Amino acid sequence: MYRVTVRGHMMVAHSLADPFFGPAQALHGATYVVEATFSRRELDDHACVVDIGAAGEALRAILGELTYRNLDDHPDLAGRLTTTEVLARHVADRLAAEPLAAGLDALDVVLREHPDAWAGYRLELS
Amino acid sequence: MYRVTVRGHMMVAHSLADPFFGPAQALHGATYVVEATFSRRELDDHACVVDIGAAGEALRAILGELTYRNLDDHPDLAGRLTTTEVLARHVADRLAAEPLAAGLDALDVVLREHPDAWAGYRLELS
Amino acid sequence: MYRVTVRGHMMVAHSLADPFFGPAQALHGATYVVEATFSRRELDDHACVVDIGAAGEALRAILGELTYRNLDDHPDLAGRLTTTEVLARHVADRLAAEPLAAGLDALDVVLREHPDAWAGYRLELS
Amino acid sequence: MYRVTVRGHMMVAHSLADPFFGPAQALHGATYVVEATFSRRELDDHACVVDIGAAGEALRAILGELTYRNLDDHPDLAGRLTTTEVLARHVADRLAAEPLAAGLDALDVVLREHPDAWAGYRLELS
Amino acid sequence: MYRVTVRGHMMVAHSLADPFFGPAQALHGATYVVEATFSRRELDDHACVVDIGAAGEALRAILGELTYRNLDDHPDLAGRLTTTEVLARHVADRLAAEPLAAGLDALDVVLREHPDAWAGYRLELS
Amino acid sequence: MYRVTVRGHMMVAHSLADPFFGPAQALHGATYVVEATFSRRELDDHACVVDIGAAGEALRAILGELTYRNLDDHPDLAGRLTTTEVLARHVADRLAAEPLAAGLDALDVVLREHPDAWAGYRLELS
Repeated sequence: MYRVTVRGHMMVAHSLADPFFGPAQALHGATYVVEATFSRRELDDHACVVDIGAAGEALRAILGELTYRNLDDHPDLAGRLTTTEVLARHVADRLAAEPLAAGLDALDVVLREHPDAWAGYRLELS
Repeated sequence: MYRVTVRGHMMVAHSLADPFFGPAQALHGATYVVEATFSRRELDDHACVVDIGAAGEALRAILGELTYRNLDDHPDLAGRLTTTEVLARHVADRLAAEPLAAGLDALDVVLREHPDAWAGYRLELS
Repeated sequence: MYRVTVRGHMMVAHSLADPFFGPAQALHGATYVVEATFSRRELDDHACVVDIGAAGEALRAILGELTYRNLDDHPDLAGRLTTTEVLARHVADRLAAEPLAAGLDALDVVLREHPDAWAGYRLELS
Repeated sequence: MYRVTVRGHMMVAHSLADPFFGPAQALHGATYVVEATFSRRELDDHACVVDIGAAGEALRAILGELTYRNLDDHPDLAGRLTTTEVLARHVADRLAAEPLAAGLDALDVVLREHPDAWAGYRLELS
Repeated sequence: MYRVTVRGHMMVAHSLADPFFGPAQALHGATYVVEATFSRRELDDHACVVDIGAAGEALRAILGELTYRNLDDHPDLAGRLTTTEVLARHVADRLAAEPLAAGLDALDVVLREHPDAWAGYRLELS
Repeated sequence: MYRVTVRGHMMVAHSLADPFFGPAQALHGATYVVEATFSRRELDDHACVVDIGAAGEALRAILGELTYRNLDDHPDLAGRLTTTEVLARHVADRLAAEPLAAGLDALDVVLREHPDAWAGYRLELS
């Protein structure tokens, strides 16, 4: 199995409105460094998993809709608990809907929120 | 599949008493940077894999029993070959026995011993 | 010249209310990974620049007053442009007022805001 | 499942002779930081996945045949599209032919080409 | 003293035509991860050292003239020993000629060539 | 001012025999990742600060005398408080005595002991 990873980041505000989250119930923020991994059993005609330039642009376009925003007011996310896990899935689902996801066996997204914590979501596509 | 990773570290002395290990037979030491990954097919009611705060505390409590120690004298490890692989399993087994491991599909522990070497153990739980 | 660095982080929301900042005028957020470096010409009686445990605690206490907050509402920062440079100085000035800064020759604080950008402030103390 | 990773690097020139690759059709170069992961269900008699010293030497010997070279002129690679994916497989196949690969369940090789892009190949061996 | 750092990278081929460089006399390549640090005693009217967006664009424009190239054929560098030190100075001198360098006290450029080696050049401007 | 940095590491046991150090009074260990920076106002005839290969070998030779050892028993260090600051100076002083230090303006050594703490020593040579 081959795979390619591209990386980007976003800088967002949000709050987690459930007493479970303690101090993170307050409005705060995060830099999420986002790694998207595309997996495919065989390479395409250009000896690639995906066009790595297009993959980076697709990731950055998705992150561009979220960055410099308060996620509490974002139409796709308002009213939801925007945990790192949920955001990882949001990015993975968005990437899976892109034309470049055709033929992939899996898509995996990791969001690093600080040096000692990160979360991810893996979508099996085949 | 969702996953969450928390990170900690420990600073230990040990020796590897087998000629196979060459200079590492002598008493020496290491900083192990430890990453514990918790995987779960579906999120819980708080949109989480685990309570990330509790996960970090559980990891640090386990590492706290090992750090600032000579593992050659540690009751759980004396007389054993404390390779990085063995230590990764030790930490994974200890985490798997914690209440927060209930409902997980896998637990994975990596120990980074220097910039060019690390080892891990993956425990399938479902 | 000797030096010791300790690291922590904070997760904050803020906005930069000046058209100069383009999209960063909107409420957004950041994880700031903070490195505080303490410099001293000669070591103390314990062969240290500072008590590294106390230095880490002092840094984390200062960051603890900022993390999980919207800096736009923070009493020390409301109405100010909280650029990374300004925040680096804020942390450095706070550390310089701590008893552990006695005898230091310099204090230097770096805030890393994303993988491709960071800022710092250096305070000469002697 | 246990695993051990060793890391090395190589510094090569190459070109990607297909219009698909845009500016990378021109002769350029890369530092590839290479991580090779060896996986095994059970540990050997020395409580190891592999002899980590031998694994590092094997990886560095394979990279030593590629580094400080123009891959366009390399006997194993001339006339091929040396994408990161192809190079990852080349290294993995070479490692799999080494005596130390006996008994492994998987071999995984990652090549990091710059901070925001990397690729890998995983070889299932059992 | 305040400072701001922006980061970029370039992927180049080159050779070092002097027997002193051993195997690096052959045509090979490197990914250089480039960090440019801008220092200034006082902040500007926007509480900044420089416009960080403009600084990143200036750095990437300079690197864009070098990346995906064989430096042996580059008009500015052909016939020179393009050691990492020389390349760091080239980038620093180019940044110092940009309008955004007005009022700076220092410019510092680091080029990371592999995980265990990097080089830099510091230009005092005041 | 130009500079070149090379990196290595060592894995040692030691204890800090003073109540000031709390739990670190016990025998424990560390991986120290060591960065040695060589600074020089002008480049030599090969457009270098130092022969980077020789610099890396000199650093690794010095670290090779310390690694896989208990520093409490090391002839140069027994009876001393081997804080990270002291070890940084030890490595810097040893490098300064090497022939390759001739003509340098400064030597700077950093020892990283875990992700959240490091220390260094800077030796002005001119």
